[in-house]
Amino acid sequence: MATNLYDYAYELEKGLRQSEEYVELKTMYEAVENDATAKSMFDSFRQIQMQLQQKQMAGQDISEEEVQQAQLIANQVQQNEKVTKLMEAEQRMSMAIQELNKIIMKPLDDLYGIVQGQ
Amino acid sequence: MATNLYDYAYELEKGLRQSEEYVELKTMYEAVENDATAKSMFDSFRQIQMQLQQKQMAGQDISEEEVQQAQLIANQVQQNEKVTKLMEAEQRMSMAIQELNKIIMKPLDDLYGIVQGQ
Ligand SMILES: [Ca+2]
Ligand SMILES: [Ca+2]
Repeated sequence: MATNLYDYAYELEKGLRQSEEYVELKTMYEAVENDATAKSMFDSFRQIQMQLQQKQMAGQDISEEEVQQAQLIANQVQQNEKVTKLMEAEQRMSMAIQELNKIIMKPLDDLYGIVQGQ
Repeated sequence: MATNLYDYAYELEKGLRQSEEYVELKTMYEAVENDATAKSMFDSFRQIQMQLQQKQMAGQDISEEEVQQAQLIANQVQQNEKVTKLMEAEQRMSMAIQELNKIIMKPLDDLYGIVQGQ
């Protein structure tokens, strides 16, 4: 890889670090980290989310009990402003990253066309 | 997102398009596209690869027959220089993209630590 390809990536990394989306995400993340209740809620939610996702990917059945547990935690989470703000910030960051990826991956999309480009 | 974040991504996109890895990949891709035998081999290999991957992800069993078919096509592919060169070029491009992603995603890695950073 030519040296400047890495240089462009480092510039983008700096830009990302200074972006509104990242600065906000960092602020919200730290707010949750510093609040034991919010942190425990957020961790539980993440854990059950990942658990269900892994089961789904492995083609395993998800029990009624697991769905109810996930729903219960999701309801709690929705009532905690720090956690909901963090999740909104994550959503915005994730959308920005999707857009960046779409821009950067355009050359490969051009080559492989619609099948691999989507 | 600040305007310059997109600008950095567009610069990187241009850099990628001009990179040794991309130029080589494009050349090899077109060589295969313009050779009916190589193209048909490459497409068959891709197809069976994707088929097995999807089954694996869905937790479905892969039959002995499917494994043999994949092996047969893989053997054919290894004897076609145009296809092997394309696959090598894809491998190099893929490694470059992994490196780029690692650089760009460093801010998120810093925030979420080792769990989500891997
Ligand atoms: Ca190089
Ligand atoms: Ca913005």
